[in-house]
Formats: sequence, structure tokens, C-alpha cells
Amino acid sequence: MRKHIFNAGPCKLSDRTLENTAKAILELNNSGQSIMEVSHRGKEFQAIMDETVALMKEVLNIPDNYSVLFLGGGASLQFCMIPYNFLKTKAFYLNTGTWATNAIKEAKLFGEVIEVSSKDKNFTYIPKNFEVPADVDYVHITTNNTIRGTEILEDWSFNVPLIADMSSDILSRPIDVSKYAMIYGGAQKNMGPAGVTFVIIRKDMLERVADRPIPTMLKYQTHIDNGSMYNTPPCVNIFAVRETLLWVKEMGGLQAMNKLADERANMLYQAIDESKIFYCPVVKEDRSRMNIVFVLKEEYKQFEEEFAKYASARNIVGIKGHRSVGGFRASTYNACTIKDVKALVQAMKDFEKEKV
Amino acid sequence: MRKHIFNAGPCKLSDRTLENTAKAILELNNSGQSIMEVSHRGKEFQAIMDETVALMKEVLNIPDNYSVLFLGGGASLQFCMIPYNFLKTKAFYLNTGTWATNAIKEAKLFGEVIEVSSKDKNFTYIPKNFEVPADVDYVHITTNNTIRGTEILEDWSFNVPLIADMSSDILSRPIDVSKYAMIYGGAQKNMGPAGVTFVIIRKDMLERVADRPIPTMLKYQTHIDNGSMYNTPPCVNIFAVRETLLWVKEMGGLQAMNKLADERANMLYQAIDESKIFYCPVVKEDRSRMNIVFVLKEEYKQFEEEFAKYASARNIVGIKGHRSVGGFRASTYNACTIKDVKALVQAMKDFEKEKV
Repeated sequence: MRKHIFNAGPCKLSDRTLENTAKAILELNNSGQSIMEVSHRGKEFQAIMDETVALMKEVLNIPDNYSVLFLGGGASLQFCMIPYNFLKTKAFYLNTGTWATNAIKEAKLFGEVIEVSSKDKNFTYIPKNFEVPADVDYVHITTNNTIRGTEILEDWSFNVPLIADMSSDILSRPIDVSKYAMIYGGAQKNMGPAGVTFVIIRKDMLERVADRPIPTMLKYQTHIDNGSMYNTPPCVNIFAVRETLLWVKEMGGLQAMNKLADERANMLYQAIDESKIFYCPVVKEDRSRMNIVFVLKEEYKQFEEEFAKYASARNIVGIKGHRSVGGFRASTYNACTIKDVKALVQAMKDFEKEKV
Repeated sequence: MRKHIFNAGPCKLSDRTLENTAKAILELNNSGQSIMEVSHRGKEFQAIMDETVALMKEVLNIPDNYSVLFLGGGASLQFCMIPYNFLKTKAFYLNTGTWATNAIKEAKLFGEVIEVSSKDKNFTYIPKNFEVPADVDYVHITTNNTIRGTEILEDWSFNVPLIADMSSDILSRPIDVSKYAMIYGGAQKNMGPAGVTFVIIRKDMLERVADRPIPTMLKYQTHIDNGSMYNTPPCVNIFAVRETLLWVKEMGGLQAMNKLADERANMLYQAIDESKIFYCPVVKEDRSRMNIVFVLKEEYKQFEEEFAKYASARNIVGIKGHRSVGGFRASTYNACTIKDVKALVQAMKDFEKEKV
């Protein structure tokens, strides 16, 4: 029986993605070959790569002066590629949690980092109205913080290039791509399976590359020049991304995804806010729609393990909070349904009735 | 209808790999979740990762003082990671073709490279009896050259650490791992689908790390310390590697793979050597068992396109030579069957009858 999946990533994917990827693994389009067997240089895979790039541009409404890449290595590899390519003297990083902290660590290997952080309150809010010096090479933000459950829900704008890690909220709402110099992320939340990383990069960024020798695989120019095929790409993972993008289109595009994200999040946050035993530690205005963190109030803390089991018995999986935070976290990415959320809300209510 | 697949990589995989991966994408072990949906930190995926590592150790008979990693990014990323980690002053590279040339390019960013090459004869042989200076940090070789069709069929030994790119012949014969400090490669030939890279590294190599700041994702220590899970690994690709390793075991392990490789290669090279219209440009003793290069003799060159179509009409795919070399290349990796090879040999013979 299919579970109610709230995993933080890898996470629930659309039925279309799963069914069509499984089918293509057995045979791709009557080619007599699997998607895992066709040459990445052959016409079958080139068509998939081209369509996936075109779908990204269409669904996200990406202007013509941007390139779209699909690479291996994960968003964590981007943490070093970004400063390797673009940090000449100093960069500004907004530190909103674990992933931003990891990105900052890599940037410091290449230059000075100016940091504004919400660490003072355990990353439970998004810093706002901060000053960005005019002479930084770029600003780096993490738009959604999977572990702490905060999210930047608007497209910010600065007078310097803005680079955003959108690993965990890409495709959840329409965005104004033109406000960003680069957007990147691992696919394994809203976009597809783990093993492929997307990069949306404004072409003029390539004129800003730092004056240091950069290994070929770590240069954005390499991958742009070769249409993401300098080396063999993760073909089956890209295929699954294509299917997910087609599913997003079928569902009504990013307007529909945005509406669904609101519905899921509102339903869950309402249940948490009305609960006598659970609460959400994140300030209301910065609450993530993708990762909904909720913990037991002090007097009910002893029931943590019990609620985990209670939910599990109702086929709810993946709600344990990150090991660094504890409590619970429901990750409600695009493929998470209202039915899934209702099952969780009901479990919370029923459990509360037994305990209060 | 299933084709006779001779793609150079990605390439033919075992039926077991395709069928079980497709099944796990629909549902993994009655978990109610897809292999693309389960958390990489959960017990389901951890068991897959652990088993895949254990199978690698078993099948390749890897001694205890080695770590086995599965990473993203491709073997091309290893080309820079190796010198980043281990090149202090100079390294020795054997240049046997395109991939070795690419590896050398990256090494030169980090130090001096001493190179012995077979470029003088278009990489149609493997240099032997060369001197390796005692003071190099390591020796780097590419054991099989997919484009030119040469292969090092023995385990060499040096007085300095030996690092081997075995992307295209790993698992094709028993190897003495203890002679290597590190073995690595992309999975997309004998091991599984594109999108995952294996690294077998002797633990004492970590004491030899160069004294330079290395980005976290590019440090071998990072991935060893985190059991290949510092960041989210390419889960479905690793699952397919596990299935391929189980298939290799079922088939009789590396002894059986070695025998099959001989049978396939002998059958094809014999047909080529007996042919009046085809020949193999590679010296006999260095011919690859994985990538069998054959070209039309000068007087038959005009039939190149025609033979490509002729083979294609017989459901033979992937035999076009690399664009840098031309002619033909049959890649006969582990999952390529004697039946596939017979179909190709028959096509070559029948075509020859029509033309001579």
C-alpha cells in the first residue's frame, strides 16, 4: 500500500514520474533499449535532454539570457563551485541554517565572507532589512531551510548578483527569474530523484569569473559550452526530472503548485496552532510551506516516540525531525497530496484526544 | 524487440538490473515507497548502500585496508579530485588516449606532470618498460581506452602509489586490488547506469593528502568519514549497481566475466583479422576486450555508411566509432552476450560477401 510520504528529500514523487521512469527502464520508446542503456550522445537521449531544458524554461518562465544545466555531484558541490567561479574578493551570505552554513564554509576557502545570520534565535526566522555592501561579488541566499522550516517567499532584489539555493522550494511557486544571477539546487525535492542538480545561470555571469585556474568540471563555462554533456550526465535521473516537469504542466503549472502549497501548509499550520500539545517554533511570517516543523510542548515531550509510532501505524512516514533539531517535520513538497496532509492532521488530532 | 546493444557507455545492462530497478521504482520491497522516494538516511536505503559496498568488496576481493565509495559527479570530477588531494609536487601520468589526456590537463593545475604517451602512434598501443621517477607522488593510468580500443590487461606494480581509472573495464576480470592505491571510474559500463562513480581507496592514502585547502566535497576524507553520504547520494543509480553486482555473482563472479570477455573479444577479433574488408588498427597484444575498434580498409572505405545501415537493419546498435576516430567500435561490456557478438560477426561476414 502506498504510504503518506513526508520525507525531507528524497521525497514523494508524482505517479507519472514513477510509472514512466519504470517503463523507460524496461524500454525507452520502443527503442529496444533501456533509458539506462542508450548512449547519452545518441538522438534518443539528446531529445530527452533538450526537452527537459525546454520544459524548465517554459514552466519557470526563464528569460532567454539564462542557461539551464543538469549536472551531477549535488547542490553541495555547487557550494564550492560558486565561490570558485565568482568570488574574487568578498561575497555576502545570508546564513539561515545548516545548508547556508555549509555554503559559507566553502566560500571562505576562496575569499572574504560577509555574513548576516539568524543563528541568534536558532534559525527560527529569516533576517530582513539588512545592508549588503555595494562591493561584494554576489549575495547568496538559501530560499528554503529544510531543517529549521523557514522560507523566503518573495523574490528579493539587490544591486549585486543574487545567487539562490532553491533545492527545496524550486517549482513550488512562480518566481521572477530575472531577479537572480543564478538559481541552483538538488533535484530530490520538487523536481525528481537524487543524483541530478539543476543550475539556472544568467549568461553575463560568465564575464565575472574570478582570475584563478579552475578545474574543468568545476567551471560553469564547461557545462554551458557542452549543453550539460561535457561528461556523461545522470541520464535516468534527468529522464525522471522531465516526467516531473510534464506532471507539473499537466497539473496547471506553478500557479497550481503555489495554490496547493498554500492549501497543504495552511491546513497543517492551522492544526498545529490550534493544538494543545504541538507547536511550531518558527515565526509565522517566515514559516516554510515545504518543511513544516512541529514539536511537542514541554509537558507532552514524553510522548514524542509514541506519536512517531502512532503516525507510522497510519502509514505516515518521514515525519521525524532532523537529528539536529528533534521533534517532527512534515515535508510537503509538490507531490504531497491534500489527502496525505489530511491523514497527518487527523492523526495529530486523534492522538491529542487521547493525551489531553 | 531488444536490440544487440554495443554502446560505448551508457551501455547494455543485465536483465536483472533493468527489471529489478524498474520494480523498485514502482515500489521498494513492499515499503509503500519508491527507491526514488525513500530517505537516504532511512533504514531501507542504508541497507542498500551497505549491501552494495559489501558486494563490491566481495566480488572484487578488496582487502580490509580499502574504503569503497559511491559518489556523484562522474569520473571526470575525479580527474581534478585526485591531484587536488594527492599531487604535492609532481605526478606521473601514462597518456593512452582521450581520458588520460583529460586527467593530465587537471593534474597540471596542481603541480608538475611527467608524461609517457602513445600519442606518437595515435594511441594504438600501450607504452611499456618506461621509467617512473621514485619521487613522484603517484602514478596514474587508464586501464582501458574506450575510444582507441587498447587495454592494460595485467595489474601493474610500482614503488609509488598507483591510481587507475578503470571506468571501462572494472568487473571484467579478477584484479589484485592490493597493487593499487586507488581505483575509480564511472559506473556506466560494466557496473550500472550513468550518474554514479565508484572509488576504491587504500586508507593510508589519506595520510598523503597535499597541504592545501580542499573544498569539502572534493576531499576523499569527507566521503570516507560519511560512508558516501556527506550529501544525498544518487540512490536509484546505486540501487542499479547493487543489482548488477548481484548479477555478476549469479553469473559466477569475475572468473566467469573474464571468460566471457575472452570469448566475446576472441570471436570478434578473429572475424576482423580474417576479414578482407575490415581491420583493427590496434597492436595485437594491447587490444581491448571491452571496446573492439575496426575500420574498413582503404579500398572499402566508401562502404562505411552502408555497413552502419546494414547492421542497424539487423537490430545492431552503437557500433559507430567515436567521432574523433571514425570507423566502427563494438563495446562488449559484461552484459553483452555471445548472441549479440554472433549477430555482429554474421552481419560483417554477410556484408563482406556482398562486397568482395
